[in-house]
Amino acid sequence: MGAFPAALEELIDQFASLPGIGYKSAQRLAFHILSLPDSEARAFADAVVRARDRIHCCRICQNLTDADACAICTNPRRDASVVCVVSDPRDVTAIEHTREYNGLYHVLHGVISPMNHIGPDDIRIRELVERVAQGGIQEVIMATNPDTEGETTAKYISRLLKPFEVKVTRLAYGIPVGGSLEFADDATLMRALEGRLEF
Amino acid sequence: MGAFPAALEELIDQFASLPGIGYKSAQRLAFHILSLPDSEARAFADAVVRARDRIHCCRICQNLTDADACAICTNPRRDASVVCVVSDPRDVTAIEHTREYNGLYHVLHGVISPMNHIGPDDIRIRELVERVAQGGIQEVIMATNPDTEGETTAKYISRLLKPFEVKVTRLAYGIPVGGSLEFADDATLMRALEGRLEF
Repeated sequence: MGAFPAALEELIDQFASLPGIGYKSAQRLAFHILSLPDSEARAFADAVVRARDRIHCCRICQNLTDADACAICTNPRRDASVVCVVSDPRDVTAIEHTREYNGLYHVLHGVISPMNHIGPDDIRIRELVERVAQGGIQEVIMATNPDTEGETTAKYISRLLKPFEVKVTRLAYGIPVGGSLEFADDATLMRALEGRLEF
Repeated sequence: MGAFPAALEELIDQFASLPGIGYKSAQRLAFHILSLPDSEARAFADAVVRARDRIHCCRICQNLTDADACAICTNPRRDASVVCVVSDPRDVTAIEHTREYNGLYHVLHGVISPMNHIGPDDIRIRELVERVAQGGIQEVIMATNPDTEGETTAKYISRLLKPFEVKVTRLAYGIPVGGSLEFADDATLMRALEGRLEF
């Protein structure tokens, strides 16, 4: 009998099933839960259920929201003629943080990845094409990550959007601001050279 | 509007309130919860509530249990004349894992630590003294961690137990000084048990 009581073992297992959490960390987290006042442990469990119940994808842009359409899509001051396509809701947060972008978004919830058996139908590409087909969108900015899968996804989508009267662009690649040439990898440097701009 | 919907923000905050989990990790965990099937998210929340509801301290040894008295205390094949005193339930698991020890335990749930305002009355020392006072215990093995607070606690308890006819020993220094019982390997723990010394 070296194990913990069943209910504790189960809680440890649940924590250990989360990404990036090993058994020792799961133990620590489970013991922390046991040490909490009852109300706080319940608030934690409630937050899990509530998030799962209330959060779903925006009818228009597929970003996470607790409303029918998200706060960005329903904001009349946003420019509805530009749509920025990202793979993850966190990318929306990152771009919003710059306060530079005033258009709308489209969240794919993934990228095409044959290695992981994720095809075009497994992410929200169809919803994007339908949005564009409805008209009113003049530019689609592809802002998937600058890796193989992100670029493949962007290229695939740009080809799908060819039949429509819409400009498809992508984020510029280059040296990160504040970065150093010395530490930039070859691919980034090549991209930065290719995309050089006139002063 | 760079933030996430309220229910998601709350879930992130709940994860971020756990020990050793920063905001980025909390984000990752919250998104993982949202990606789970509804039943799995609910199972996670239920595990939290159930552990909090069912797990409490054993009436006898103060170890965590879902019964009135734990499986070790109620096991008739265990030697009830020896009690091993540890600071944490995880230490019981570590010692049980060696399969070398057949006595009972007493879990203090902490150590005396003036720095952290934890005095003798804040841990389960009184319960241990009462157990010893009831008679039937011939040896108390102090197995607190071999650091300053652990040793102070062990010495304090051994002094409290002086009036009773009980042998008080401590684990031998097979355990690396400054280390933690929880992370000791089986061989080290076995040596420490075999070579235990009288106070």
